[in-house]
Amino acid sequence: MKIFANEIKENDDVDSLFLVKDKVSGVTKNGNPYLKLKLGDRLGEIEGRIWNSVDLFIEAFQKEDFVSVKGKAVSYQDHLQLNIGYIKKVDEETLSLSDFFPVTEKDVDQMVRALIEISQEVKEPHLSQLLHLFWEDPSFLERFKIAPASKQLHHAYLGGLLEHTLSVAQLVLKNVDHYKGLNLDLLVVGAILHDLGKVYELSYHRAFDYSDEGRLLGHIILGIEMLEAKINQLADFPKDLSTLVKHLLLSHHGQYIWGSHKKPMILEAVILHHLDDMDAKVSGIQQFLRTKVPEGSRWSSYHPLLDQSFYVPSPKQEEEQSNIIEES
Amino acid sequence: MKIFANEIKENDDVDSLFLVKDKVSGVTKNGNPYLKLKLGDRLGEIEGRIWNSVDLFIEAFQKEDFVSVKGKAVSYQDHLQLNIGYIKKVDEETLSLSDFFPVTEKDVDQMVRALIEISQEVKEPHLSQLLHLFWEDPSFLERFKIAPASKQLHHAYLGGLLEHTLSVAQLVLKNVDHYKGLNLDLLVVGAILHDLGKVYELSYHRAFDYSDEGRLLGHIILGIEMLEAKINQLADFPKDLSTLVKHLLLSHHGQYIWGSHKKPMILEAVILHHLDDMDAKVSGIQQFLRTKVPEGSRWSSYHPLLDQSFYVPSPKQEEEQSNIIEES
Amino acid sequence: MKIFANEIKENDDVDSLFLVKDKVSGVTKNGNPYLKLKLGDRLGEIEGRIWNSVDLFIEAFQKEDFVSVKGKAVSYQDHLQLNIGYIKKVDEETLSLSDFFPVTEKDVDQMVRALIEISQEVKEPHLSQLLHLFWEDPSFLERFKIAPASKQLHHAYLGGLLEHTLSVAQLVLKNVDHYKGLNLDLLVVGAILHDLGKVYELSYHRAFDYSDEGRLLGHIILGIEMLEAKINQLADFPKDLSTLVKHLLLSHHGQYIWGSHKKPMILEAVILHHLDDMDAKVSGIQQFLRTKVPEGSRWSSYHPLLDQSFYVPSPKQEEEQSNIIEES
Amino acid sequence: MKIFANEIKENDDVDSLFLVKDKVSGVTKNGNPYLKLKLGDRLGEIEGRIWNSVDLFIEAFQKEDFVSVKGKAVSYQDHLQLNIGYIKKVDEETLSLSDFFPVTEKDVDQMVRALIEISQEVKEPHLSQLLHLFWEDPSFLERFKIAPASKQLHHAYLGGLLEHTLSVAQLVLKNVDHYKGLNLDLLVVGAILHDLGKVYELSYHRAFDYSDEGRLLGHIILGIEMLEAKINQLADFPKDLSTLVKHLLLSHHGQYIWGSHKKPMILEAVILHHLDDMDAKVSGIQQFLRTKVPEGSRWSSYHPLLDQSFYVPSPKQEEEQSNIIEES
Amino acid sequence: MKIFANEIKENDDVDSLFLVKDKVSGVTKNGNPYLKLKLGDRLGEIEGRIWNSVDLFIEAFQKEDFVSVKGKAVSYQDHLQLNIGYIKKVDEETLSLSDFFPVTEKDVDQMVRALIEISQEVKEPHLSQLLHLFWEDPSFLERFKIAPASKQLHHAYLGGLLEHTLSVAQLVLKNVDHYKGLNLDLLVVGAILHDLGKVYELSYHRAFDYSDEGRLLGHIILGIEMLEAKINQLADFPKDLSTLVKHLLLSHHGQYIWGSHKKPMILEAVILHHLDDMDAKVSGIQQFLRTKVPEGSRWSSYHPLLDQSFYVPSPKQEEEQSNIIEES
Amino acid sequence: MKIFANEIKENDDVDSLFLVKDKVSGVTKNGNPYLKLKLGDRLGEIEGRIWNSVDLFIEAFQKEDFVSVKGKAVSYQDHLQLNIGYIKKVDEETLSLSDFFPVTEKDVDQMVRALIEISQEVKEPHLSQLLHLFWEDPSFLERFKIAPASKQLHHAYLGGLLEHTLSVAQLVLKNVDHYKGLNLDLLVVGAILHDLGKVYELSYHRAFDYSDEGRLLGHIILGIEMLEAKINQLADFPKDLSTLVKHLLLSHHGQYIWGSHKKPMILEAVILHHLDDMDAKVSGIQQFLRTKVPEGSRWSSYHPLLDQSFYVPSPKQEEEQSNIIEES
Repeated sequence: MKIFANEIKENDDVDSLFLVKDKVSGVTKNGNPYLKLKLGDRLGEIEGRIWNSVDLFIEAFQKEDFVSVKGKAVSYQDHLQLNIGYIKKVDEETLSLSDFFPVTEKDVDQMVRALIEISQEVKEPHLSQLLHLFWEDPSFLERFKIAPASKQLHHAYLGGLLEHTLSVAQLVLKNVDHYKGLNLDLLVVGAILHDLGKVYELSYHRAFDYSDEGRLLGHIILGIEMLEAKINQLADFPKDLSTLVKHLLLSHHGQYIWGSHKKPMILEAVILHHLDDMDAKVSGIQQFLRTKVPEGSRWSSYHPLLDQSFYVPSPKQEEEQSNIIEES
Repeated sequence: MKIFANEIKENDDVDSLFLVKDKVSGVTKNGNPYLKLKLGDRLGEIEGRIWNSVDLFIEAFQKEDFVSVKGKAVSYQDHLQLNIGYIKKVDEETLSLSDFFPVTEKDVDQMVRALIEISQEVKEPHLSQLLHLFWEDPSFLERFKIAPASKQLHHAYLGGLLEHTLSVAQLVLKNVDHYKGLNLDLLVVGAILHDLGKVYELSYHRAFDYSDEGRLLGHIILGIEMLEAKINQLADFPKDLSTLVKHLLLSHHGQYIWGSHKKPMILEAVILHHLDDMDAKVSGIQQFLRTKVPEGSRWSSYHPLLDQSFYVPSPKQEEEQSNIIEES
Repeated sequence: MKIFANEIKENDDVDSLFLVKDKVSGVTKNGNPYLKLKLGDRLGEIEGRIWNSVDLFIEAFQKEDFVSVKGKAVSYQDHLQLNIGYIKKVDEETLSLSDFFPVTEKDVDQMVRALIEISQEVKEPHLSQLLHLFWEDPSFLERFKIAPASKQLHHAYLGGLLEHTLSVAQLVLKNVDHYKGLNLDLLVVGAILHDLGKVYELSYHRAFDYSDEGRLLGHIILGIEMLEAKINQLADFPKDLSTLVKHLLLSHHGQYIWGSHKKPMILEAVILHHLDDMDAKVSGIQQFLRTKVPEGSRWSSYHPLLDQSFYVPSPKQEEEQSNIIEES
Repeated sequence: MKIFANEIKENDDVDSLFLVKDKVSGVTKNGNPYLKLKLGDRLGEIEGRIWNSVDLFIEAFQKEDFVSVKGKAVSYQDHLQLNIGYIKKVDEETLSLSDFFPVTEKDVDQMVRALIEISQEVKEPHLSQLLHLFWEDPSFLERFKIAPASKQLHHAYLGGLLEHTLSVAQLVLKNVDHYKGLNLDLLVVGAILHDLGKVYELSYHRAFDYSDEGRLLGHIILGIEMLEAKINQLADFPKDLSTLVKHLLLSHHGQYIWGSHKKPMILEAVILHHLDDMDAKVSGIQQFLRTKVPEGSRWSSYHPLLDQSFYVPSPKQEEEQSNIIEES
Repeated sequence: MKIFANEIKENDDVDSLFLVKDKVSGVTKNGNPYLKLKLGDRLGEIEGRIWNSVDLFIEAFQKEDFVSVKGKAVSYQDHLQLNIGYIKKVDEETLSLSDFFPVTEKDVDQMVRALIEISQEVKEPHLSQLLHLFWEDPSFLERFKIAPASKQLHHAYLGGLLEHTLSVAQLVLKNVDHYKGLNLDLLVVGAILHDLGKVYELSYHRAFDYSDEGRLLGHIILGIEMLEAKINQLADFPKDLSTLVKHLLLSHHGQYIWGSHKKPMILEAVILHHLDDMDAKVSGIQQFLRTKVPEGSRWSSYHPLLDQSFYVPSPKQEEEQSNIIEES
Repeated sequence: MKIFANEIKENDDVDSLFLVKDKVSGVTKNGNPYLKLKLGDRLGEIEGRIWNSVDLFIEAFQKEDFVSVKGKAVSYQDHLQLNIGYIKKVDEETLSLSDFFPVTEKDVDQMVRALIEISQEVKEPHLSQLLHLFWEDPSFLERFKIAPASKQLHHAYLGGLLEHTLSVAQLVLKNVDHYKGLNLDLLVVGAILHDLGKVYELSYHRAFDYSDEGRLLGHIILGIEMLEAKINQLADFPKDLSTLVKHLLLSHHGQYIWGSHKKPMILEAVILHHLDDMDAKVSGIQQFLRTKVPEGSRWSSYHPLLDQSFYVPSPKQEEEQSNIIEES
């Protein structure tokens, strides 16, 4: 059973799986080699030391490997440290990623089913087929189910991309009939595919970071390419239609300064941008507030990317006087 | 019956009401005084000339007055011109403003009723009373029913403010249950009151323009003052609650560069900003597209404030292949 | 008598008043509870520890309380630390705030008298009455006398708001006759009232920080409301005149990017903005230079908000060659 | 005697001096050559035509020459036009520049005397000598007396640079004793020399425009060079002192985006920037308001460089209720 | 033989080819239908009128068609106008596009050969094959030979894209050995392909404008897609290598505010950006100077996109004293 | 022989030269005075302590002096520390600056000769003489040979200014014949003189930092003054020509936001700006990559001034497949 890094106490005997977050070799004052590790999981980190049989272990695992570790927790200069007697690399397939990374609280398969159901709303046959190609592609689906939506800003957890995508698609359905003359098919396809490329932009099997491709090309270009590849599988996908779908992807960030490749030039793109932005902001702020409001305070700490703090009105007071909405 | 400026043809005898958009006195080559007018209504403008009895008419009306005019349309240097035999000022009360200004296509009283109904959703007693004070204030209501939402950008027609306010309130109801823990009362009150001050920021009885107060103080400050005046009528309105409502007004433009006085610091303000912005953008672009897409083109002319053009996908093609939404 | 934190030396027996800047409870290796405090005053901070009778003291005071402390200064790991034997909360009224916060070097009452005298220059009767209402409001005056003008940037000390307000009013008097046709009354009223709302924007009884209202609404809005409340007490204050006074408050930051709600649209507002900005900059830089020029250097350290350093020409050299001005 | 362009009426025989603002040669339908001129002076412009003896006159003058003209005013297609019978170039020295360009309303020699008097305040001997070198340089003085302070924005008239320089120097004297420890000598020298280079940046003998040097180098660099040339004439001008004076010139625009070469890094530069900016703004707005407030309106037309309009409170109302300042 | 619009004189009998730039139908005062045309070619425009047999001609051609026209030039209200007796549509293939649009002064086929020769420098086999695929694609080559490089800013003439591409490739060769360790292959491929998508971004057979695809997707995305299509034809093109080539395209505008999709992250991309930018600027300014320096002036008129004017030092003076470079 | 700070190990007896980077006096617990030093050289820093004869040494040297030091390396709290028995100041002339600061890897004299050779390309006699004046000025040359080109961003080592200047001049020669009609003389002079003022902007005998003059005036103004001084030595240097050379210096940063005093207004200035910017960027990034790419990574660490990271494609892979250029 997984023992989490933050649960370990002095003198514990530990036998558990960890992710190697750092691995440095050193030499003691006596001239003996040793290994200094940083071991982590979803809930914390702990220092590790290998003092013995270093030559045996030194090549057995690398930074960012998952390892099985046996050792004893000791206190050194006020810090807890794991003196490791045995360590070996373990295969990613044999463990549960959610022990190591934050993960969506929602049911992944249920979310996929909800998205596929929403796809039925699309009546234009080419667009409908396009969505089907994605749902029928198991290697896409596998990544799409666990990818986070961002490294840090919003939905930054396994399954976050799926959660965000479903949320935007639901928002589209809620709002599409509020204005006259909108093309529902385009909006639904845009909502479902808008962040497609994040499946490859981020690497998330070892740490949440950008992949080389993600940094050099960006998720929008990666998404365009994934889309083009699928469109090429469909016999007679209309050129105009593919241009519009691509435009939705290219313009969903809204403005150049926000990394948009194009300004939204059709009404559906204007709406997709607003709903996507609202969902990313609201979810990102909610995620931030969960950990960044000091106890006893109504003010969050400073949010560096948004350059401001947030205020949380006293819940008690509101409970009495207002009707707070439970999520639908 | 109203004859509109754009309906007048050469040699017509005209007897109708107009708004005096310009009034300049001149002297003919023969040394005789004359008056040069620009007469307008909702659909157009026509030049007017008074050659006779100028001293009789010169003080009888001013620029921006409504006038009853009798005259004959003649052609002079390729332009149509109305030679006026008789003119007199008429009272604003005796005419229909919608002959002179663009006006909402929706039913004003029905929109007011819809807003009042939405107000019932508010359960917190102080906020509920606050909304009632506005609905029970006939002088407010009279202005609120005809004010435009802006001079030019969106909902720039009589009744536009009401239409926009209702639209934002409806959007709030559609989206409020999508996220957990939102305060419905605050959101509804924010939606209904957010543009309150536009009732006084714009003058719209003679031309759509900003009032002196509107230019010197702005609609947000005017709204805060109207709000404060109503709150002062309520015995024990909680200080914290009034601060939050004011914050919703102050922050609804989202960012300083967009004229916001504060950044949204509570989740309800974040959401109000997004929905308000989406409604203003979508409605403004729809209004723009109605007149600014040249026949035969799929591209609108350049929108100077948004610094771009918009694309209108061929409706025919879409009709066949997609399911276009009719407004709910 | 107050012993200041920075005066305490090893082995001193300390008996003095402090502000509790932090209070954390911990457990020793032996499992005994203890309290870890940060105690501060105007001149410094010192760590405090309560090892005994923790249950007795733990509820007796909170963070940001003023306390009377008895204890002995000991050295632990190179740091000085106060082992506290007795501690109790004391009432704010019984102590001198200037022991705990930086405070203006000028005479507060004399500054108030100077401002009231300047108010006599205002001849327009409504404006004159308006100023009187403020001077006759003891609860306003009490706060106005101690409020700082900012948290950090300029006049960031008790009495700083009053000092800055007087300075701007004096600058107005010095410069008003340099240009033709200026309205002295408006300028004086604008100078005196421009930062009014800072009385409530900042909290300064325990620490210099923003109040909830200050963060959610800002000092300009708070000032507008205080102004409106006073104007409502005056029978027939002309609407146009109150609009102009409010415009002076709303526009005194000059440009949107500097947090101004309006650009200055009347000449008096243009001038008020320039003199206010000059006073804030000059005083802020002088305050900065007092502590941020390393000994032996002519260059200050980096000023992060102004994104630059400042140069202090060698005083000696100048003394000989120039006529340095003593403040008037 | 000068007859101004805007005073000419149909059928007038005109004999006066004008500036040739444009000169184009054409051919009539009958194949005869003619000259089409635009003639101007301080108050207006009039079209001119030379139909006869064109070969005689065509080389006799060029665009931007001053000419003596004899002709008759006729009306052609509703426009007044001067049929010229005789034209010859006249020497700039023989005429009064103020007939052709706007000119300061103040007494130029009196302003120079005032500036020289202010120079006496400077006690540091090198700085004092530096100012003297300028006052004793007749070719500098001649240009300094007539140069405008800008092409358009403020003090855009002959003598405007002198007027602005004096105004800033007076402002310095009014404000220097408000703050402690300022170096009066530096401030006075900075005020007097800050816009020095405008003497060469602008050409103003024919039209207000930038000189080649002015466009390629700018008035700040030209000023630095003029300053350096004078300093080189002084035996032992201290290096540190010349650096500070140059810094005042380089930094007086305050920020890079306003064309400042350096940010103000000494307190005197901070103050010089603020007072210079206030004077330019206030004078520029006053000059703008003189011609750009439509009769009957309280709002100026749009000021494109400042991107706003200005409000002029009803003077009548204020006269009754306020004490308007006459310029000192 | 082509008679150009700007060569037509009153009373000329005209028989030539034109592009229909505008076509409006009207009704004369007598109630007869007529057609009002704007006819253009590379050197000018002329108004056209069809007074007779309107029903015969009205459907025979449309706006943006090329037409063969017979008519007589008459003068009406000072403007030249072509009264057309006969008009018919002609096929684009039968005429010379360079009569209607500005065209490169260089030899197109020679430029293509030069580019292909430069392609030989590429040694890496996949990149070499990639370039070959483009050179062997006749439909690409046909468009690549005539496409302009921009609508207006630089190389805005037929063949301009080719000319600019060759120029950047030559600059790469000139500079690549100046720095150590650069990858010549990547740089050459980047230079040749960087503006690829402009082949479809602009439409240039009737007028220089953006295509729908060009506006909705942009030339960078279009280029990425063309590149991807070719790479897919190559069996084992390395993923890393294609990512780098795409990165060169995505980043060649250098910064987000200049429309770059990515910042240059490899040294080759940094260099490509600089050389591309230099070439676009220098060529654009040279093109601008050719027509925008008024005779007798050394200053160009204002360049709105670059927000400045340019100075042309007197060529005579330089000829004598300097060694001006003839293009290599 | 120099022992470098980073070579010292525990228990070493050290006898070497160092730069005093910091010097603070303290008192031990026993009340004895001691000195705490930071000693540095090109490769590292080490803490120093003087426990004995403090009064003897305390005035013998200052911070930023070079000193000869004898002492023993001991370990204290895990840090290495030099216990100094003897220390004395040494004269800068007696040591090799390159032991203390990073230094160009190229041959300084050879670079000077190359620049002088390039100067021969200049044919215009005044410009040619101007360059000669600089090359014949030994005090200039001495500084020019060792000055760095910047404090940190690019060529931040002794000789860096010379290296950068030569590089830009070579780039000018490589590219000047690519465009028609460029003035080679101006371009070469501009390249050689553009960063002239850096000779005085930076102080680099003790530490790389800005001089007082450098901070208050900037290298562009310093360069203009050095240029003006030389031009004044030449009898009849044409005014127009000196204006153009100065314009090249003033505009070489390209845009105001990048610290340019003028936008480039002649083609030669446009080109100089691009080549200078390319050289600074490429060299700066190469210098950055040398130390900031973690082993095993293809990504550099974050570059704060350029706000991005850089990617280094695997050299191995490229070696096989591409032709990497060796520097010419």
